Amino acid sequence: MPRVADKQERREQVVEAAFRVISRDGLSGTSMRAVAKEAGCTIGLINHWFASRDDLIEATFDRAIELEMERAAAIVSDPVSYIDAAGQFLPVDERRRDDAKIWIAFYAMVVCGSEHEHRRAARCNAVRKVMVEGLREFRPLAVCHDIVDRIFVLVDGIAINALLDPKRWTRNRQRTVLREGLEDVLERHAKE
Amino acid sequence: MPRVADKQERREQVVEAAFRVISRDGLSGTSMRAVAKEAGCTIGLINHWFASRDDLIEATFDRAIELEMERAAAIVSDPVSYIDAAGQFLPVDERRRDDAKIWIAFYAMVVCGSEHEHRRAARCNAVRKVMVEGLREFRPLAVCHDIVDRIFVLVDGIAINALLDPKRWTRNRQRTVLREGLEDVLERHAKE
Repeated sequence: MPRVADKQERREQVVEAAFRVISRDGLSGTSMRAVAKEAGCTIGLINHWFASRDDLIEATFDRAIELEMERAAAIVSDPVSYIDAAGQFLPVDERRRDDAKIWIAFYAMVVCGSEHEHRRAARCNAVRKVMVEGLREFRPLAVCHDIVDRIFVLVDGIAINALLDPKRWTRNRQRTVLREGLEDVLERHAKE
Repeated sequence: MPRVADKQERREQVVEAAFRVISRDGLSGTSMRAVAKEAGCTIGLINHWFASRDDLIEATFDRAIELEMERAAAIVSDPVSYIDAAGQFLPVDERRRDDAKIWIAFYAMVVCGSEHEHRRAARCNAVRKVMVEGLREFRPLAVCHDIVDRIFVLVDGIAINALLDPKRWTRNRQRTVLREGLEDVLERHAKE
């Protein structure tokens, strides 16, 4: 059924276009018109899949979550490579910088609004669950959650600072701060 | 000159109103109309001080910076109380939660746009400078900058996670993660 495949692909292209527009111009600059222009199609065609701008933004957020879940799944179960793998979340190259910008735009949307309350928690928990599973074999459950908390704090904190001051936060600097932060957390738990 | 004082006070009230609207409805929900309603005045009166919505947002951002600078200045020069004082930045109560929401909204605006590039760097550096000064007497300059980097990472990372998942991130949890993170950084430098 090539037409169905084409349609699915076209839908994904629209979401990808929305992704680029948000990371470039922010949510406030993301109109249906801007996304249509970026995707090289008409607004009518976008409306075929997305009833409203909100639907399109929602689908883009879902796509960002998917990407994050794939990265979380790639974080393997051994704490040492865990640290390296967590580096996958950092904005160390162009693509990941765009991803991190999207996340900050979504965070801003979510924390300043109330309609997304429930979805928000579900989403945080989905990524958390994958990451806790990866450690579960090696550490008690509470410790796994604690380590994942620290990874979230370090990754989000480094990402924001790296986007605000890219000259100071080189790729190496980002990785060093993440690695040292996680080493300290693991050492703290090893002592307990 | 009571009229001048009144005017200044009225201007500050408008900025405070904008602050509340942004933290409640996000930047996208912050129209001149919404701020006028919140401040209990007319749009015409707001236009008296702020030529455009951008000017008002800018002034609100300036106010957020001022608050942050006051908190940074309160962080005293001894590394031990430094850790406690850094806790002032965390969203541990209603007012600080609103402040943190404003910061995320501004971060999103700044990282997804390009017009603010220069101001952005200047602002990060202003807060950084105050905080580095507080440590300067006790540690070499490079170490001071490193510690301030980690404070920024921990505070921003904890703030975002606390706003997204307030049930998990109680006040005590926020403070513990900040304190342990900073203790680890100070210990790391002490070893070197």
